[in-house]
Amino acid sequence: MVRRAEVFRTKQGIDLLTGHRVTAIDTENRRVVGTTLAGGPFDRSYDRLLIATGSTAVIPDLPGVDLPGVTALKTLEDGRRIKHLLKTDAVRDVIVLGMGYVALEMVETLSALGIRTTMVKPNPVFLPWLAPELGEAVKAEVAANGVGVHAGHRPERIEARNGALKLVCADLELSADMVLVAVGVRPASKLAADAGLELSVSDAVSVDRRLQCSVEGIYSAGDCADAYHVVTGRKTWIPLALRANRAGWAVADNVCGQVNELEGVAGTAVFRVFGMEVARTGLNAAEAKAEGFDAAEMTIKGASRAHTYGKSHPLLVSAVADRKSGRLLGMQIVGREGAAHRINAAAVALHAGMTVAQYTQSDLAYAPPFGPTWDPTLIAANQLMKQL
Amino acid sequence: MVRRAEVFRTKQGIDLLTGHRVTAIDTENRRVVGTTLAGGPFDRSYDRLLIATGSTAVIPDLPGVDLPGVTALKTLEDGRRIKHLLKTDAVRDVIVLGMGYVALEMVETLSALGIRTTMVKPNPVFLPWLAPELGEAVKAEVAANGVGVHAGHRPERIEARNGALKLVCADLELSADMVLVAVGVRPASKLAADAGLELSVSDAVSVDRRLQCSVEGIYSAGDCADAYHVVTGRKTWIPLALRANRAGWAVADNVCGQVNELEGVAGTAVFRVFGMEVARTGLNAAEAKAEGFDAAEMTIKGASRAHTYGKSHPLLVSAVADRKSGRLLGMQIVGREGAAHRINAAAVALHAGMTVAQYTQSDLAYAPPFGPTWDPTLIAANQLMKQL
Repeated sequence: MVRRAEVFRTKQGIDLLTGHRVTAIDTENRRVVGTTLAGGPFDRSYDRLLIATGSTAVIPDLPGVDLPGVTALKTLEDGRRIKHLLKTDAVRDVIVLGMGYVALEMVETLSALGIRTTMVKPNPVFLPWLAPELGEAVKAEVAANGVGVHAGHRPERIEARNGALKLVCADLELSADMVLVAVGVRPASKLAADAGLELSVSDAVSVDRRLQCSVEGIYSAGDCADAYHVVTGRKTWIPLALRANRAGWAVADNVCGQVNELEGVAGTAVFRVFGMEVARTGLNAAEAKAEGFDAAEMTIKGASRAHTYGKSHPLLVSAVADRKSGRLLGMQIVGREGAAHRINAAAVALHAGMTVAQYTQSDLAYAPPFGPTWDPTLIAANQLMKQL
Repeated sequence: MVRRAEVFRTKQGIDLLTGHRVTAIDTENRRVVGTTLAGGPFDRSYDRLLIATGSTAVIPDLPGVDLPGVTALKTLEDGRRIKHLLKTDAVRDVIVLGMGYVALEMVETLSALGIRTTMVKPNPVFLPWLAPELGEAVKAEVAANGVGVHAGHRPERIEARNGALKLVCADLELSADMVLVAVGVRPASKLAADAGLELSVSDAVSVDRRLQCSVEGIYSAGDCADAYHVVTGRKTWIPLALRANRAGWAVADNVCGQVNELEGVAGTAVFRVFGMEVARTGLNAAEAKAEGFDAAEMTIKGASRAHTYGKSHPLLVSAVADRKSGRLLGMQIVGREGAAHRINAAAVALHAGMTVAQYTQSDLAYAPPFGPTWDPTLIAANQLMKQL
């Protein structure tokens, strides 16, 4: 934990009420009501209210999902449960449901502990939000590290059998000591919805650029709230740490009377799985088409260092643009080094609303240990120009 | 060498005349004249002319600078001479004149060969174009790797004494087996100047956005030519590889009748010296003041990874802005990892003419192995906002 409750109370003078569950917001009378741990009622008035209820792990409606040894990883309690299982039950095999960031970070961590892992999900495409070549490169890295990858298998039930857990799909049966559910999160927005506040994409709490909800005086920030997407200008729900943190600061400003309007998110995200860095920003080709853009896509294979330098690794870059306006809409990078921070140049370009032609003019850094003369993101943009 | 002459001749059908020295350009009659290696004259007409004469190493006017064992590193011949000296003369000590990119990359290379190196220059500040804390961090890294650093000593002469070379300054005498001159380069623009073409900053050949010189039909690209600076809009001379390469392509387009106008350079540069990455883009505080901006500067100490992740290294970031317009003018980053590619986000922001406030809104990538939730460049921008 980054901060303990006492720090808020003693150092910051915040009246922090842990063990108080808010069950309803009375927007008319500006009050929140709920119950304490002891079961008694409580009731508080407010001038301004911030809803920062976060997100909750999606638990699929699957027979056996409540068996001991089946767990999500979202809360501190989940983390403690997993640590306990690993320590006391001599877990040697783990099935991971899902293939997102959390699922991939967990197979890496479990593998490092010497545990065999197997990933399962219904969608036959490993990372469907990545351009095909990039997704294949990540899948190959995961498989090369001994992880079983079963994409295209819908779990039907989990059974406890002979002291092990069995995951049953239509044409696949897997056995393990533990099942980790990592199929995504959803906004914890029920309290807001019950109070009559507007929800938007994915049922996230709808907020304006000042983080204010549909009812004046109520704000929302963090994984429960939506955001504007800087590429589409439309609402989106991409619950990541930087936006949550930035929104928290902005709410503080706005509540205190200092106007702070946020531009929104570009959908920039990065993770590492084993030796591979995976980064994205903006829209992929499918998202761009769904948003009504005339999407063009280009994938190139660059290098992480100058060819004269040696010790270089392939760097796959995929760039997406709108044929009509020439605008850069998104970029993705996968490689063993140099992918993570490289994505930020494209992210800034998205904020600036740059065309691909403008991006190709960027004076990016070059030295042999860090890349070729033309940065791979520039090579992708140069090649993409031919399609525009 | 990246390309050998035969490739140009056979694969690309270019009439490549090596061993032909052009001594004059007759812009009136569109001819170049000169001498061949054999001493005979030659004479060629042109429709379009490209001047790509590059730059030459600055050799200080120093008694003894022509002694055997004193050499620059600019031409292939220089490289061969150095390799020969290292191999046959059992060089154990090298004095390096200058403390720029080439000087620093050479002390690293020589150190890796087990050779003791000592750097000397007149300016008492180690890297005067870096913010003080950043320059000190690089200097500490160089010194920690056993390199002698003598900033503030003007070389007066080099003497050959007892089989060694002696560098004499007013209050310092150093002895070595070899002296490497790395005090900078200048544009090889004499031919252009003699032909009446306009020169600009640092006597670089003046070109417009299409790389055309002051005389129609003559183009210039590479280290001999100038460029527009995207921050100031004025001419500048920053001879680096990406601009040279990009200008070459643009000349080809323009000569062939396809208009290709270049925005210019942001002054983005990066190098590695021992374990340290050093990156910059745009203007530093002194340059900003000299250009008439009301410069504000902020230096922060961030981290290369999330504090929960461990194995993090300090990352020093310095950002410069104009108080009047709020515009971001430049950024510098120094650290053991994560400095090189991080600079590109700021470089793109300079191309887009972003204010610091706009930059702080950037949705940059976050994951614990790659940085803290707020990218150090964002932290620098946030802190800089307080001065604006």
